[in-house]
Amino acid sequence: MPTSPDELRSLVEERLDALRLWPELHGQAESVRYSLTVGGKRVRPVICLATAEAAGCEPEEAIPAALALELVHTFSLVHDDLPALDDDEERRGRPSTWKQYGEAVGILAGDALLAEAFRLATAYDTPHVARELANATLGMIGGQYLDITGTAPNEATLHSLKTGRLFAAAVGLALSVAAVPNAEQKPWRAFGEELGLLFQIVDDILDGDGYVVTHGVDGARRLADEAAERARLRLAEVDADTSVLREIVDSLAVRTA
Amino acid sequence: MPTSPDELRSLVEERLDALRLWPELHGQAESVRYSLTVGGKRVRPVICLATAEAAGCEPEEAIPAALALELVHTFSLVHDDLPALDDDEERRGRPSTWKQYGEAVGILAGDALLAEAFRLATAYDTPHVARELANATLGMIGGQYLDITGTAPNEATLHSLKTGRLFAAAVGLALSVAAVPNAEQKPWRAFGEELGLLFQIVDDILDGDGYVVTHGVDGARRLADEAAERARLRLAEVDADTSVLREIVDSLAVRTA
Repeated sequence: MPTSPDELRSLVEERLDALRLWPELHGQAESVRYSLTVGGKRVRPVICLATAEAAGCEPEEAIPAALALELVHTFSLVHDDLPALDDDEERRGRPSTWKQYGEAVGILAGDALLAEAFRLATAYDTPHVARELANATLGMIGGQYLDITGTAPNEATLHSLKTGRLFAAAVGLALSVAAVPNAEQKPWRAFGEELGLLFQIVDDILDGDGYVVTHGVDGARRLADEAAERARLRLAEVDADTSVLREIVDSLAVRTA
Repeated sequence: MPTSPDELRSLVEERLDALRLWPELHGQAESVRYSLTVGGKRVRPVICLATAEAAGCEPEEAIPAALALELVHTFSLVHDDLPALDDDEERRGRPSTWKQYGEAVGILAGDALLAEAFRLATAYDTPHVARELANATLGMIGGQYLDITGTAPNEATLHSLKTGRLFAAAVGLALSVAAVPNAEQKPWRAFGEELGLLFQIVDDILDGDGYVVTHGVDGARRLADEAAERARLRLAEVDADTSVLREIVDSLAVRTA
């Protein structure tokens, strides 16, 4: 029996709580810890663990990669919330990190999250996990730049970078951990790309922006359903028990928060 | 004949100029490039290359590690200069990155430098280089926190983190690249620690702060000379041609800029 998404989420929460930050962070560790415990759906690390298990390894083996990914995601939120960027004083009903600790410590908290992510990602014998994480992070930062400067050539490019890269990495990191041969990675990776798109479109439907502005609610809903269907088709091409990943697709398609 | 410090510095400049940033950074690449070309002494990457050569490998092999280190150093400067931290509008006679591109892009430039550093550091077959870089970066961020919050237990701790970690990493990264066995690393690493201390004390003498405030000019000068002498003694313990590193110690001890 593969591990259920809820069980994987509990595992992520538990291991995030128990995460031993690098001792030399000294007092900076407090704001890092704060930013990691504002909750969230932990959807990226759950996808990473589920993919790793489907690809044939224990979820436990993928924990450092999954946590590293969540740290990169959290880093992006902490810096996005800064006054110079989105100027958000709240995140999930609590003061955002910079609002709680001041701007200087907020900036350093994001920096520390990113460096901790790479510390985790280099816990493996191969550099592939950290390399994939670095590439995904750079793509995400590029997307962030296109967003704040309004210079994205189109919506698809923007989202495939800003949201898509970390979703694709959730799958890609798991393939590295499970040592899936390059020749077999294509459908898996295509699945990761579709997941990112699905997540973004549903986000826009829930927020009433982005794809809803350009395609209307019904149009956006149709695009989301199509992305979910393509994700399921990619999974069907994989010779493995992908039932948990299919369950994740289904729940991402109908999520209401 | 080992490569001279000036030749190594030219190599660093040349390879930094030619550095191909990750294409998905899109327009964000411009500010990253800007921040890397404000000059500077390139002292950390030069030490890294000189150590690698002394430890038996070609400087070329250590280039990704040396550049990664310079990118982490540059990341720290870019974020330090931000209004919420040191609020510096100039660096080396030119507008600082945030002053040139705005605060939002300045924050992202630092983020991108850090992620690019890890992309470079994962170019090796082993994860050791990137892992050492992550640990050093976390120590440096911890030192930065102690500095801005005024919570450092003492000056030595503050400097060993804020300045020392990257100097120690200049040596440590080279040892990883040159595959120096752990059992032989001790004097090398002790040398790296002394170099960081030497650099910091001389910096304070040039700026008239830090060690000059606590020990007076003559006291600080004496501490610098002692650190330089300990660095030379550590080098003498190593069974290798460390003449270039000795030359670097001598020039760091008497530098006037």
